[in-house]
Amino acid sequence: MIKKRIGQRTIKLNNLPTIIAASSVVGPKEGEGPLKDKFDLILTDDLYGEKTWELAESKMVKTVMEMNVKKAHKKLSDINLLYGGDLINQIFPSSFAARDLAIPFFGLYGACSTMSESLCLGSMAIDGGYADYVLTGASSHYCTAERQFRFPLELGNQKPMTAQWTVTGAGGLLLAKEGNGPKVKYIVPGKVIDKGIDDANNMGAAMAPAAADTIYSYFNDTKDDPNSFDLIATGDLGKIGKQILLDILKEMKVNISKVYTDCGLEIFDLENQDVHCGGSGCGCSATVFCAYIYEKLMKKEFNKVMLVSTGALLSPTSSLQNQTIPSVAHAVVIVNE
Amino acid sequence: MIKKRIGQRTIKLNNLPTIIAASSVVGPKEGEGPLKDKFDLILTDDLYGEKTWELAESKMVKTVMEMNVKKAHKKLSDINLLYGGDLINQIFPSSFAARDLAIPFFGLYGACSTMSESLCLGSMAIDGGYADYVLTGASSHYCTAERQFRFPLELGNQKPMTAQWTVTGAGGLLLAKEGNGPKVKYIVPGKVIDKGIDDANNMGAAMAPAAADTIYSYFNDTKDDPNSFDLIATGDLGKIGKQILLDILKEMKVNISKVYTDCGLEIFDLENQDVHCGGSGCGCSATVFCAYIYEKLMKKEFNKVMLVSTGALLSPTSSLQNQTIPSVAHAVVIVNE
Repeated sequence: MIKKRIGQRTIKLNNLPTIIAASSVVGPKEGEGPLKDKFDLILTDDLYGEKTWELAESKMVKTVMEMNVKKAHKKLSDINLLYGGDLINQIFPSSFAARDLAIPFFGLYGACSTMSESLCLGSMAIDGGYADYVLTGASSHYCTAERQFRFPLELGNQKPMTAQWTVTGAGGLLLAKEGNGPKVKYIVPGKVIDKGIDDANNMGAAMAPAAADTIYSYFNDTKDDPNSFDLIATGDLGKIGKQILLDILKEMKVNISKVYTDCGLEIFDLENQDVHCGGSGCGCSATVFCAYIYEKLMKKEFNKVMLVSTGALLSPTSSLQNQTIPSVAHAVVIVNE
Repeated sequence: MIKKRIGQRTIKLNNLPTIIAASSVVGPKEGEGPLKDKFDLILTDDLYGEKTWELAESKMVKTVMEMNVKKAHKKLSDINLLYGGDLINQIFPSSFAARDLAIPFFGLYGACSTMSESLCLGSMAIDGGYADYVLTGASSHYCTAERQFRFPLELGNQKPMTAQWTVTGAGGLLLAKEGNGPKVKYIVPGKVIDKGIDDANNMGAAMAPAAADTIYSYFNDTKDDPNSFDLIATGDLGKIGKQILLDILKEMKVNISKVYTDCGLEIFDLENQDVHCGGSGCGCSATVFCAYIYEKLMKKEFNKVMLVSTGALLSPTSSLQNQTIPSVAHAVVIVNE
């Protein structure tokens, strides 16, 4: 057995899984943002022909997975495993999509870290020889998330300026043991970190320490140079969380500022789209990666990227019980080599 | 790279992970059941010294994981990965336990299939060389589940006789790449199956087809003989679901009746404990496996066991939207060899 861990946390893969397809579907608002030309499908309304928002979100998941299989000229029955999740109680959208796709399914809950969580686990499944083809992905929907975590949309509630806007979107990847495309080289599983933030309208501040912990672990374990990356993308710390992350990492003597962005700042135009601190939700880093970042990797404009999806592991119940917000961030390093 | 798949679904591990420790904590009612002498800890009240049931459930998870580490003479910092989940929205209990344990954490949602889901993923992490020590587990709590899925306890609502009783309990396993103990040899990831059952008070009927699909896949892939097993344990189909499973498998020409039990029937005395069709909840198969079945494996009274935790992937929202109940079952074959 080959030991694949480096240092305390980082896992180096041996048989690098190739991302042979990536697909994204977003809602109308996301389709008016800066990445509008990158998505596979922009919905004209939030219901996507379904009777409820949850069923619409489920259909978005199904759509991106079917798109991936089609792009790779495969059949759904060729896929060995599906890893995915979302924000909704009992991951209703993902579970129902998995039923319709009829692929063996490992359901995940990592809040907005789900895209990189699924990519970590899916990559291990390919690298370890457990599967030839794996689908991974995540989704969120503004309307399903708002009514579950905050207030009925009909109330028209105002949000503080520290809040973020949940992305309506699903992103999915198809991993294979061989093929053309960028490859997953390193995985850094995240620890759950809680620095005592209890404001559910300031999740960037709650999640930044978890992102810092994971990013620091990678550089500490590998001694890699941050500037060897074309991009390090967290998702979704937003405007405030981004600055906190840079501040924490500066104290840890890790400087990623030249190559760093946050997916929550990429998907919306913060000046003109009234989204306060930026995008959030599992679908944020999922769609930004599957649309914008994947395209750059395919065009060789990026050759080394770290995706660090970040999740705030609060629930309405934990908030009612006056608990703070534990957070987690899983990192994946993707390369052209 | 060694290909580890056999047939359509089954994965055969090469470097069999050893279960070097198992621990369980249960509530007072479970502590009066037939397995009362098997659990590590029986709580004297449902709150376990905490202010809320969710925090009590979280403490139960933390307790079993700490017990495992202690039994194996390890430290928490020796553990590379933690896989776990529960039934509660945003897996509040597991996420908070993961924070306190400070082990890199992959959060799962598989409803009552979580014990075998975590064991599948944790076993791959050891077998693939990604980790030396992995903790896996699952929990449920009667009081947290009732108020989330059904009615406030204070209502004293009556349940139909097809309903099951959610177990208050947490079970956890410590896997290692070497050591003394039974070993995980085969994994069968579950497909999400939905035969159109929409009665949330008859989840055994909803889950039985998923269990049948997974069990059939194993025997079809491996051509193994059901009677070579000392025990095949589903969890938690209950009294009705158990019979449905046997009926479906009979039609598929797979006869497991001589070696079959359901964890929901083991944990309670159905005649005298007023639990209707038996136990349910992630904690049901988790505690039955970690207490009773693990002990039998350690004593070599069992040498080949299949654990098939079963999960109903409904949510209160999906039920309100008149949806049926998709279900999933993951299987793990554990051997002494």
